[in-house]
Amino acid sequence: MGTTELRGEIEDFNYAYADALDCGRLTEWPTYFTEDGFYCIRSRENADAGLPVGLVYCEGMAMLLDRIDALIHTAMFEPRYYRHMISNTRVLGVEGGVIRSESNYMLLETLIDQNTKILQAGKYVDEFVKVDGKLKLKSRDCIYDSLIVQTALIYPV
Amino acid sequence: MGTTELRGEIEDFNYAYADALDCGRLTEWPTYFTEDGFYCIRSRENADAGLPVGLVYCEGMAMLLDRIDALIHTAMFEPRYYRHMISNTRVLGVEGGVIRSESNYMLLETLIDQNTKILQAGKYVDEFVKVDGKLKLKSRDCIYDSLIVQTALIYPV
Amino acid sequence: MGTTELRGEIEDFNYAYADALDCGRLTEWPTYFTEDGFYCIRSRENADAGLPVGLVYCEGMAMLLDRIDALIHTAMFEPRYYRHMISNTRVLGVEGGVIRSESNYMLLETLIDQNTKILQAGKYVDEFVKVDGKLKLKSRDCIYDSLIVQTALIYPV
Repeated sequence: MGTTELRGEIEDFNYAYADALDCGRLTEWPTYFTEDGFYCIRSRENADAGLPVGLVYCEGMAMLLDRIDALIHTAMFEPRYYRHMISNTRVLGVEGGVIRSESNYMLLETLIDQNTKILQAGKYVDEFVKVDGKLKLKSRDCIYDSLIVQTALIYPV
Repeated sequence: MGTTELRGEIEDFNYAYADALDCGRLTEWPTYFTEDGFYCIRSRENADAGLPVGLVYCEGMAMLLDRIDALIHTAMFEPRYYRHMISNTRVLGVEGGVIRSESNYMLLETLIDQNTKILQAGKYVDEFVKVDGKLKLKSRDCIYDSLIVQTALIYPV
Repeated sequence: MGTTELRGEIEDFNYAYADALDCGRLTEWPTYFTEDGFYCIRSRENADAGLPVGLVYCEGMAMLLDRIDALIHTAMFEPRYYRHMISNTRVLGVEGGVIRSESNYMLLETLIDQNTKILQAGKYVDEFVKVDGKLKLKSRDCIYDSLIVQTALIYPV
């Protein structure tokens, strides 16, 4: 399979992933990962320094499920809308069944009575594998440029 | 035709549609619709509640033409630039010749002496059909997250 | 080669181009151009009026190299991150080996302790040729909607 075709598949994956989050179908989120899936949100500053510490750190399905469960039960005091804009998807290489890829993302947030703003911009550094013919995330490292203004609620990006 | 190929066609359509609006070629806009084409702009809040009321509501070519005619003759007191960023196009299904699809959009606005800002972010909920081999919108439901700041001018998104 | 396939290739090109700039690999930038490559950044107002004057104007490889060399040696008083979001790529035509194409771009900027903001939004008006089977820019005309707030540092877009 060519690189452009593979990019198309990854884009399809990312757009479905984003739609689940933007529409609040949070329980779908872990299904985008493999059983040993890794997920992390950390700042570009830390990533550049090789530091693994992040806002969110999940290793394996149990932690991914825990994360989303905590989020579902978090009280949100102000209603808000999220919307992902994902672009610039690049296939970096395929080796031993692992597809390395990067994409740029923006997470837009709209609070009632406020203008839409960029809550977070950054890049996904991803490793995909195919499970039963479908792409799954073996690893998604979300590296954000932005300072996150509210840390009470860490929504997946 | 595969889904990825179809997404490519819809993206081509959306990018041409956006360019017509961004460059001010407003009379082109109705040509992107079928004769019985439907177009609506409404808030996510209303859409979630199943309410059809919207900022703009057009059923059929006569109303689409009326809409654009009104807009062309509206006095604009401040010059401004628009730019659409369309991403996350998803093909949801094809049934009886009707292609259901969604895309995320941002409408950027730049006023003279001001920074570019996000005027509106939202999603297109679309139904396409092919007329003489070319895609046309049978229905475009623009569901915005953002509160629109100025309602005097309702530009198509 | 079909237009959709060609769009895929141009997107691959643009995403690699943007990644080089966003990651600060500035010396890569001239390699995306032909030997006689043209690069220009100018306002939409000037472009609409047919004026060639711009913030940045480079004709040929020597000027492209000069430009990037100046930038590398410019003192930057505040650390900042850049991120390109490129979308809405349109293939306009292919004639005599020259591919005419347009894309929309946003350049996001994040300064330490500030929210991510849209530094510049605009469109690339491009001419590509193939050199040894790979796309190169014969001409990239960056036409921005936004007023640029700081002109001390003109980063390529």
